[in-house]
Amino acid sequence: MVKRERWRQDFSGWFNDILQDADIMDTRYPVKGLYVWRPYGMKLRNLVFSRLRQLHEDTGHQEVLFPLLIPETQFQKEADHIRGFEGQVYWVTHGGLQKLEVRLALRPTSETSMYPMFALWIRTHADLPIKVYQIVNVFRYETKMTKPLIRLREVTTFKEAHTAHATAEEAEAQVREAIAIYRKFYQELGVPCVISKRPPWDTFAGAVYSIAFDTVTPDGKALQIGTIHNLGQNFARVYGLKYEGVDGKHHYVHQTCYGISERAIAATIMVHGDDGGLCLPPDVAPIQVVIVPIPFKEKETPVEKVAGEVREELRAAGLRSHLDDRDLRPGNKFYYWERKGVPLRIEIGPKDVEKGQVTAVRRDTGERVTIARRNLKAQVEQVLRQITDHLRQRAKSSFEKSIHPAADLKSARELLKKEGGIIRIPWCGQESCGKRIAEETDGEMLGEEIDSTPQPSARCPVCSQQARVNALLAKTY
Amino acid sequence: MVKRERWRQDFSGWFNDILQDADIMDTRYPVKGLYVWRPYGMKLRNLVFSRLRQLHEDTGHQEVLFPLLIPETQFQKEADHIRGFEGQVYWVTHGGLQKLEVRLALRPTSETSMYPMFALWIRTHADLPIKVYQIVNVFRYETKMTKPLIRLREVTTFKEAHTAHATAEEAEAQVREAIAIYRKFYQELGVPCVISKRPPWDTFAGAVYSIAFDTVTPDGKALQIGTIHNLGQNFARVYGLKYEGVDGKHHYVHQTCYGISERAIAATIMVHGDDGGLCLPPDVAPIQVVIVPIPFKEKETPVEKVAGEVREELRAAGLRSHLDDRDLRPGNKFYYWERKGVPLRIEIGPKDVEKGQVTAVRRDTGERVTIARRNLKAQVEQVLRQITDHLRQRAKSSFEKSIHPAADLKSARELLKKEGGIIRIPWCGQESCGKRIAEETDGEMLGEEIDSTPQPSARCPVCSQQARVNALLAKTY
Repeated sequence: MVKRERWRQDFSGWFNDILQDADIMDTRYPVKGLYVWRPYGMKLRNLVFSRLRQLHEDTGHQEVLFPLLIPETQFQKEADHIRGFEGQVYWVTHGGLQKLEVRLALRPTSETSMYPMFALWIRTHADLPIKVYQIVNVFRYETKMTKPLIRLREVTTFKEAHTAHATAEEAEAQVREAIAIYRKFYQELGVPCVISKRPPWDTFAGAVYSIAFDTVTPDGKALQIGTIHNLGQNFARVYGLKYEGVDGKHHYVHQTCYGISERAIAATIMVHGDDGGLCLPPDVAPIQVVIVPIPFKEKETPVEKVAGEVREELRAAGLRSHLDDRDLRPGNKFYYWERKGVPLRIEIGPKDVEKGQVTAVRRDTGERVTIARRNLKAQVEQVLRQITDHLRQRAKSSFEKSIHPAADLKSARELLKKEGGIIRIPWCGQESCGKRIAEETDGEMLGEEIDSTPQPSARCPVCSQQARVNALLAKTY
Repeated sequence: MVKRERWRQDFSGWFNDILQDADIMDTRYPVKGLYVWRPYGMKLRNLVFSRLRQLHEDTGHQEVLFPLLIPETQFQKEADHIRGFEGQVYWVTHGGLQKLEVRLALRPTSETSMYPMFALWIRTHADLPIKVYQIVNVFRYETKMTKPLIRLREVTTFKEAHTAHATAEEAEAQVREAIAIYRKFYQELGVPCVISKRPPWDTFAGAVYSIAFDTVTPDGKALQIGTIHNLGQNFARVYGLKYEGVDGKHHYVHQTCYGISERAIAATIMVHGDDGGLCLPPDVAPIQVVIVPIPFKEKETPVEKVAGEVREELRAAGLRSHLDDRDLRPGNKFYYWERKGVPLRIEIGPKDVEKGQVTAVRRDTGERVTIARRNLKAQVEQVLRQITDHLRQRAKSSFEKSIHPAADLKSARELLKKEGGIIRIPWCGQESCGKRIAEETDGEMLGEEIDSTPQPSARCPVCSQQARVNALLAKTY
């Protein structure tokens, strides 16, 4: 019933088509790397990011909004940071017909916009911790191939959180909290991930270390869908973020920051889709249930009337439901809503009306279920939960199949070439060996996995010393 | 009890202080005209704009999101439009270390970003109407004095709606719908407005005519808080927005657009405030009820426990409530929450606990009301409704006093100088007379009021012909 052939074999074509067909984005905006969110896509975006917003609110993060424009003088204070971004920053040089005295950067991320203000906010230990976040547009002058939702010049939807703490321990604890938030977020979306500490040569510009979440796309590449950085005192020293401690002395704060972009939406679309189109988890589906009346001319049963009642009943139950009463053939409607990934379709024909029932069709499996009208709410809710579970389970099982353990470089290289996905290989943890592993396997080092440890007998495939961690390797987006 | 002396006499100082004190914005960002939204301000912003969003959704507008960056070639197609904006547009000229081939404008408004895409979306009459909106940041290189929430270089929160229609009549009807939406929005916020058709010399760049909403600030100036434009076919011709009609022929569409910025929040703060600080309408107050326990050491009554129960009860009733259990003196807490404009304070002392009651204090009047615990929800809701009504009524009455009818130029000029506010004066409607009225009265012509008509006997103060409309004049922000 459910096919995933094109989804697997021509994934890039599938993805581009579905964004357009399902009314997610229009990819025809006349500037490379910029796209237009269409109404249905916006609803999906808002649902996904409200969830992320709520997870931040529940853990004591406060929403703020900082300016997009950062003066060059302020932007360039942290040396590593500017080195990391100088090739990617858009510069505003003119206001109206005048040349600006100081060039303004379009934020590629907001450390340099926020932290000078943090310096005004932090006086004593009582002002700490600071835990803020914003959901904003950020800009990167990408020279590589751009791709909607994935590699953008305007990232339209970037949730970035920034924190400041009195001690290094508290900053560490904050990194753990951020990991827990992101883990929960992706669990809810049914998007499976590996979590790894990025290698030193792939750490965020200005950070002490970086943690990243990666999922695997149907074409076997790793997609980074969240990063968490321990900034130590690097930015604090540059921007003078000091507090007076209980000891009466002044100390630099310890900081973290962490971000998730619209790639979260890309991942949700990618891991759950099939040849028929989107297949959205009920929690974030803009329409959870679509009702399609199936009238027969010869019978004068009140199909439309009952369909309207069913819609009202579902709405009253708090379900996002829609009655498709367009003058189209039911088959066309089925196809239309399948493309858009509506989790459950309810068909109501004359026989259903007579029997006091509806026919529900699951988007994920194609399975048909008859539901008695008197049990409508409870059973629809139950089926939606089953869909959620099934999507999560299906994605997990497919993800697990894409993770390949390897013990030596040759088999790692072959696996990566033949199977794609992520290679898990023991590593001593030394930078030179790590770089060699990446090079010899023709993959990119995602980093050391935080949820696994190698067997005590495992050896680094380069230096043969005892492996300290599991390295993860992949081709990446 | 309630003082409005500083609010009236040093309004500018009052406004700047309260934004900082009440945690609305930090105005110390080191670029002119750019400000930082603080957490409490963000909550207010989100509540105000969700309401505006809902009003658009309820009337069939669909949310979209277009890129910030507009290529110069595309931006400059509509000649009037570019003339209107050329002095105000920020230009991106460099990406990383490279000079861009085509300069990119930061949108000052999105006609030129959206309409080339509309051209792809519109084929036949069945694709019409298009009614979309977005809530985005827009940029204006302001050379005048900037002011938080009022005159910004980054307008962080701009709701702009854009529509396309088959006929001129439908575009006219859309203008009326937009007026109705904005009227309702400001009625709910309790912000009184006059609505006028802007004079030809103050029409939006590229529009056929513009309608504007203005309120009056405590220092007697008019503040434009919403505009609605009938664009006719001006942009349609430039961007080729044609549809195939039922007649089989191709026609240009008719368009409208309308916007409201964070000035809506400025207006809400301004019209309702007093010397004590903000005074927020309950509908948009981030905290509607704050609970302050008043413990006495000598009595071991369970004041805190009861305060917690009251908080839970109010939360369960869907009210945004907060228990202030900080280790501060009650008086300090009162002051703190008054500054922030929380509509209702509930005090709970030992006597209240004994008597099974709470003491509620209204922010708007200072009035104290005793509420029995068993009636808590119903009575709190009732008091909040009374506060809403009172704020609306107080603002309306103060607004009406600031509108001064005048019959001749001299008295108009004197009234404007002495009283400020808005002068209503009959006008024949001719441009030359209108400009003369503005000049002679030393005011700005807001335009012809749409909700009033002059007496049949009224004459234009310049040409003495019969007055066709009432002109509105004011000093403006």
